[in-house]
Amino acid sequence: MENMLDKKIITIVDEMQDDMVKMRRDFHRYPEPGWTEFRTASLVAKRLETLGYNVQTGSDTVNKDYMMGVPDESVLKAAMQRAISQGADAEWVAKMDGGMTGVIGTMVFSQDGPTVAMRFDMDSNDVWESKEESHRPYKEGFASVNDAAMHACGHDGHTTVGLSIAAILAKLKDSLHGKIKLIFQPAEEGVRGARAMVENGDVDDVNYILGAHFGFKMKKTGSVACNVKGFLATSKYDARFTGVPAHAGAAPEEGKNALLASACAALNLHAISRHSAGVSRINVGTLTAGSGRNIIGDKALLQMETRGGTSAINDYMENEALRILKAAATMYDVGIKIKKMGGAAGADNSPELARYIQNKAESLGIFNNVVGACDFGASEDFSYFMERVQKNGGEAAYIMVGADLAAGHHDSNFDFDEKALGYSAKILTTLAAGLLQKKQ
Amino acid sequence: MENMLDKKIITIVDEMQDDMVKMRRDFHRYPEPGWTEFRTASLVAKRLETLGYNVQTGSDTVNKDYMMGVPDESVLKAAMQRAISQGADAEWVAKMDGGMTGVIGTMVFSQDGPTVAMRFDMDSNDVWESKEESHRPYKEGFASVNDAAMHACGHDGHTTVGLSIAAILAKLKDSLHGKIKLIFQPAEEGVRGARAMVENGDVDDVNYILGAHFGFKMKKTGSVACNVKGFLATSKYDARFTGVPAHAGAAPEEGKNALLASACAALNLHAISRHSAGVSRINVGTLTAGSGRNIIGDKALLQMETRGGTSAINDYMENEALRILKAAATMYDVGIKIKKMGGAAGADNSPELARYIQNKAESLGIFNNVVGACDFGASEDFSYFMERVQKNGGEAAYIMVGADLAAGHHDSNFDFDEKALGYSAKILTTLAAGLLQKKQ
Amino acid sequence: MENMLDKKIITIVDEMQDDMVKMRRDFHRYPEPGWTEFRTASLVAKRLETLGYNVQTGSDTVNKDYMMGVPDESVLKAAMQRAISQGADAEWVAKMDGGMTGVIGTMVFSQDGPTVAMRFDMDSNDVWESKEESHRPYKEGFASVNDAAMHACGHDGHTTVGLSIAAILAKLKDSLHGKIKLIFQPAEEGVRGARAMVENGDVDDVNYILGAHFGFKMKKTGSVACNVKGFLATSKYDARFTGVPAHAGAAPEEGKNALLASACAALNLHAISRHSAGVSRINVGTLTAGSGRNIIGDKALLQMETRGGTSAINDYMENEALRILKAAATMYDVGIKIKKMGGAAGADNSPELARYIQNKAESLGIFNNVVGACDFGASEDFSYFMERVQKNGGEAAYIMVGADLAAGHHDSNFDFDEKALGYSAKILTTLAAGLLQKKQ
Amino acid sequence: MENMLDKKIITIVDEMQDDMVKMRRDFHRYPEPGWTEFRTASLVAKRLETLGYNVQTGSDTVNKDYMMGVPDESVLKAAMQRAISQGADAEWVAKMDGGMTGVIGTMVFSQDGPTVAMRFDMDSNDVWESKEESHRPYKEGFASVNDAAMHACGHDGHTTVGLSIAAILAKLKDSLHGKIKLIFQPAEEGVRGARAMVENGDVDDVNYILGAHFGFKMKKTGSVACNVKGFLATSKYDARFTGVPAHAGAAPEEGKNALLASACAALNLHAISRHSAGVSRINVGTLTAGSGRNIIGDKALLQMETRGGTSAINDYMENEALRILKAAATMYDVGIKIKKMGGAAGADNSPELARYIQNKAESLGIFNNVVGACDFGASEDFSYFMERVQKNGGEAAYIMVGADLAAGHHDSNFDFDEKALGYSAKILTTLAAGLLQKKQ
Repeated sequence: MENMLDKKIITIVDEMQDDMVKMRRDFHRYPEPGWTEFRTASLVAKRLETLGYNVQTGSDTVNKDYMMGVPDESVLKAAMQRAISQGADAEWVAKMDGGMTGVIGTMVFSQDGPTVAMRFDMDSNDVWESKEESHRPYKEGFASVNDAAMHACGHDGHTTVGLSIAAILAKLKDSLHGKIKLIFQPAEEGVRGARAMVENGDVDDVNYILGAHFGFKMKKTGSVACNVKGFLATSKYDARFTGVPAHAGAAPEEGKNALLASACAALNLHAISRHSAGVSRINVGTLTAGSGRNIIGDKALLQMETRGGTSAINDYMENEALRILKAAATMYDVGIKIKKMGGAAGADNSPELARYIQNKAESLGIFNNVVGACDFGASEDFSYFMERVQKNGGEAAYIMVGADLAAGHHDSNFDFDEKALGYSAKILTTLAAGLLQKKQ
Repeated sequence: MENMLDKKIITIVDEMQDDMVKMRRDFHRYPEPGWTEFRTASLVAKRLETLGYNVQTGSDTVNKDYMMGVPDESVLKAAMQRAISQGADAEWVAKMDGGMTGVIGTMVFSQDGPTVAMRFDMDSNDVWESKEESHRPYKEGFASVNDAAMHACGHDGHTTVGLSIAAILAKLKDSLHGKIKLIFQPAEEGVRGARAMVENGDVDDVNYILGAHFGFKMKKTGSVACNVKGFLATSKYDARFTGVPAHAGAAPEEGKNALLASACAALNLHAISRHSAGVSRINVGTLTAGSGRNIIGDKALLQMETRGGTSAINDYMENEALRILKAAATMYDVGIKIKKMGGAAGADNSPELARYIQNKAESLGIFNNVVGACDFGASEDFSYFMERVQKNGGEAAYIMVGADLAAGHHDSNFDFDEKALGYSAKILTTLAAGLLQKKQ
Repeated sequence: MENMLDKKIITIVDEMQDDMVKMRRDFHRYPEPGWTEFRTASLVAKRLETLGYNVQTGSDTVNKDYMMGVPDESVLKAAMQRAISQGADAEWVAKMDGGMTGVIGTMVFSQDGPTVAMRFDMDSNDVWESKEESHRPYKEGFASVNDAAMHACGHDGHTTVGLSIAAILAKLKDSLHGKIKLIFQPAEEGVRGARAMVENGDVDDVNYILGAHFGFKMKKTGSVACNVKGFLATSKYDARFTGVPAHAGAAPEEGKNALLASACAALNLHAISRHSAGVSRINVGTLTAGSGRNIIGDKALLQMETRGGTSAINDYMENEALRILKAAATMYDVGIKIKKMGGAAGADNSPELARYIQNKAESLGIFNNVVGACDFGASEDFSYFMERVQKNGGEAAYIMVGADLAAGHHDSNFDFDEKALGYSAKILTTLAAGLLQKKQ
Repeated sequence: MENMLDKKIITIVDEMQDDMVKMRRDFHRYPEPGWTEFRTASLVAKRLETLGYNVQTGSDTVNKDYMMGVPDESVLKAAMQRAISQGADAEWVAKMDGGMTGVIGTMVFSQDGPTVAMRFDMDSNDVWESKEESHRPYKEGFASVNDAAMHACGHDGHTTVGLSIAAILAKLKDSLHGKIKLIFQPAEEGVRGARAMVENGDVDDVNYILGAHFGFKMKKTGSVACNVKGFLATSKYDARFTGVPAHAGAAPEEGKNALLASACAALNLHAISRHSAGVSRINVGTLTAGSGRNIIGDKALLQMETRGGTSAINDYMENEALRILKAAATMYDVGIKIKKMGGAAGADNSPELARYIQNKAESLGIFNNVVGACDFGASEDFSYFMERVQKNGGEAAYIMVGADLAAGHHDSNFDFDEKALGYSAKILTTLAAGLLQKKQ
């Protein structure tokens, strides 16, 4: 490694390692589901402000019309109170009213360089964290204290890395050109948050955007995948069927059977034809129907998702699914309300940026395994950012930073090797710094 | 039995027994499916004319708009030619163009009596007659010579009885008052023909109407059921689904799957809720779909029927069924054409007429078992005649004349004890003659 | 009315009316679901003891092997504690351990008479009672204080009537012969409790058994139906499907889809063929399946019931249903556990006893409307008692005592005219007293 | 083009063009479905014999145990007679008894060279050929004279090319080494014939095998695709369900519904989960069920196929499908017989052979468009030959020879530009001749 700036960054990150672990464990202890990341986001905002960033939150970061799957007002209020009781910054929390918990920190280095963005997600999963002795967070006392919430996908680490990068870039600001935008996104789980930020124009001025995830297919600390392919476009829907109850023995013909409508929908949704242009997916994940054994099933909630190897394939799946849901309701003469709960575009890394990343990863000399192409095979709403930036002529890429995992993602025993925090901060900061060298 | 007229009738019938057997066997040999009864109907018309009846056929007997399930013109033409080659009366056949094979023979005895109607059905079943030695019609040489057609429901006998009654009433005309209408109906199978006659006004002037069937629940020669209840109202539909073919390997998503639409319809039709007010039935009897193993199923024909213990219940079933069929087409984005192929109303005997029948049956002293109420549990389009006559203030009844059976109705080995021909002629003629005693 | 004993009974009941209202309201306030009727049953037992009855409870009244749908031990324990805190008799509660809350009070009048039994049910419904001002129990302060429990089917009144009859018969004991058995049954809702008592032999010595219900098809106070027909035999089942979860995007083929298995079962269960011998019913009342939108549905609970106009028809439905459930599991390669949760036989009143009831109801002169046959069209596990007593050569009957209703049975606004308590006590006591006049 | 042998071959082919057109049109006029190619195969055999080839047919070419979807004996007999009446060679036909219509022509050039095989398919499609004036075969008088049979996939051309190559190689025999095997395969449609030849050991001695198809994704005359990828493995099944008929009105519960079993199977087959490892396909192509509208559907025939991007994926699909079919039968308590009707392996061209082909195609200088990789996306039982040869250490490849098409494959208006015959003969003969230059 001959690049002096990269060398400097690596040294700084090494010095920050202990602080990063502490910060990650603090976030881990107080997990917050999508759109309720009041504690996390307020601490992020406050820290960015302290570091000298211009900080935006609330309706300056998300377009309300595109917020999907937002909890009820009462849930939001309770979450705000809990956040404050758990150490949130009350002033910042107040600005996030309505669940608008996005945070963007911007720093302008010069007028003659590119705008580089990085995105970090902050939300937790709907999982009860393990209380087994073998589970390190529990054993070492930083397991979740919030019911039915757990950082089981590493977003606590992502947020930590984001704040570390913020600190380093601020420190190096005299060596940089252009502008950095650090985007802290709510509600990545359920792929709900990215679109609301994109539709707010948050990345309309961006030339390069980078995203990263711990683990997934890179299950060893010290490895990195530079060109993640195969983001599946996806759409999430809830369908509520409303029928009419009736006594199943005395007057079954008076009922309108929402339970059967939903069962019929489930079967026929799964029978949507495969697509010859690439990967397609359909899943009815949950079905909850009926009021009692001897009552004609008068209501049903069906939660489903479609996916596609491209946005076009997902559109096909989505159109088929919506028609089937409505026809199933008609078939049983019941009402239906369909609500979009989330979605992500399909995407691929910009080839030049992918090559830049691979060169950087190899030149740093810190990774023991630098992988080129790596198939993702799942959905991530970072794809919305990629799609918008690429559409505007910019470049976008997503990398995977290897980490030893205690269990799979979304598992109640999930945990990752915290040394990966450093690897992630090193590669992302050097990538950003490199891009911010370019004068335009 | 003290009634002299009845005594006389019984004697005449006994003398006619051999002729009836001959006539029935002739009709049996040349079975003709619904709307193609050209040979049968032309022989009926000619015979009625000979007996002195005023005879109507063709559009004077059926309302074309209500003829359901009529074969194509080419089929009709071929049937007319075959009929003539098998001994039909060509002049009468010509009047039955378009399948209008109804025949009505009317005789006026006096102006001061009631109008009494009797109905006889003439069509055969879509069954290949047995060629087993144990099957009497085959053994004795009067089995069907027409492919895929057989008198497997006794209509050959009904027609024979009708002509015998015609002869006796003509002979007794001086003893009778009022008017007799002998209605020979096409297309009872599939319950298609009666409505076209009723909607032509054929029974609008009728005070009493009688119908009869051999066998069914009366499986012993010498028995009779006087009050047949529980005619099931019924509706018959054909649904044709039209999709788009596509190669199942190379481009399945380009297809529109009519096969799956029809399969989905079949399942959900059978899941229509039972009705607490009485008997309901649904049956998808045939399903023929697809063009080849490796082609997305681009077309389907589904043949179904609904039934109900009352017309209201059948209406419920029919409405549910039609909605489900359309929704299944929508679900798979395919076209659908639904065509009504037949139907019958629900009905019950007029109580006074039922009592009159039971008294007559008992007074004749010829039956060894006179049953009062008897549950039908099936459909017969005679119910349309009953409904119309009763609606106009008249009385209607349907009886079952017992007969030893060789096999069940519609079976390729069906045959009945021909002694039942005489029993039927006796009870029906004495019933009619009794009613035609009344002066109004 | 010339019968002096009946006259006396009527006078006594009239004097008890206010006490009955008080008692009914007390029971109403503390509703207890099936197998947790600790407060109700212990107060019943104590009262019967006070009145001089020989009292049995616990395993002396129910056969544990036939107790269906019993809550978990922890639920039972909590219910026992709550009962005591709400005024139950702790000593009697202790004897009802394990949910064995049946109570039988026996009094022997003489050795030379018949054994007459009456059955009263005690359990409440899983309904949250209305808090609308128009709802009398709420307005007058005797609405349920227990969450998700309400006497919405009048069993509070049945129990009250049972204790009133106990008091009167005890008072009249010198005028009576034979033996009276007053059976207070748990868990009628879900038709779970009767069979456990029958299989304990509770009615093996009984010559006559009577049951009664308020309201239902008799919706006017002062009316009574003497011959309730058409008890539907029924069976209740829970089916638990167990599959294998998998990520719906990354590896759907690794899942075993219990959700689809249950949906498939639901549809095909409803498609079980109608039965020509009489009424049949099927209902999948609830379906709860899946673990998350993006997880292949790994588990499902389906709650269903069958019914039949006769036990044979219900057996047919049950056999079909069990086969379909298992085949659906096989189809999706998932596990299944099927558990019987309840059931009732079909039944009809003994004709002689029905006539006796009608004569008595008419002779009393207190009813403004005495109805003979009345179709029930639902299920009641009293049919198990009827079946056993009739099988042993005894007679059984079930009557409906009319009552003005504020809302339908099982509705959160259900309430009945308390004057009906008196009507019920009068007819049942006079019926029992009449039977207990017979010397054998 | 410097290669003198290639130059010579091209000249010869150009001289043969008119004869090839004549031959193709003769084959086109007498299309014969799989296993009934008696006329075609006997003419092929005779011609090969004339050219000096050692010729095998009948059981010397196919393993009877692996012949799938063979017509009934009576159909075979009729086809043999028709073939002879249409100009077949009766002696050769006699050797093809039982539908064993495979023909192999072998010529040994020397002992020191490789064994090169080429495969040509001979069967026609189950299509009625167009009688529109715009359809050249009809207009020019060489349209099919056989009912329901048409060369709608170009096999008439394939056979013609095969015989042309046979003639050229025979003429050039002194310039060649090793051995040539020209395999004329029956029953490619339905992917039935190849396996029976492979399992007879027909290619066990083969070092190189080549196959070719007109058109498909190469829709322009003068183009060629050298490396066809993505043969889908496939399995074909017929499932026959056998139930019990019953009158749908009078006794529906006595039926066993094979129609609903097949409909249920169809829906659930299409709901088999997608596979994350690659392409999967399922198709129920035809469904024929039931006996009459008012009869419980007592029988059903379901024709289906699975496919997979690899043999492993197809195995997964096949296993799922077989389980579902059986479970659907169990669900409706009906019998089922499942019969394998065809199948093909997945396959890919041998990389070295693919490169050789591309070099040859480019060096010839006759093609205006030489395409490298081309995705097939369908099934071809040539894959069985490929699999076997590759397994034995040999090389295999399949090419597509471009042709202007009048309509898509299997369409009743299908026709192809006959200039493509020459292109195909040129590339295949030069490829074979090149391989036969190698001394071993």
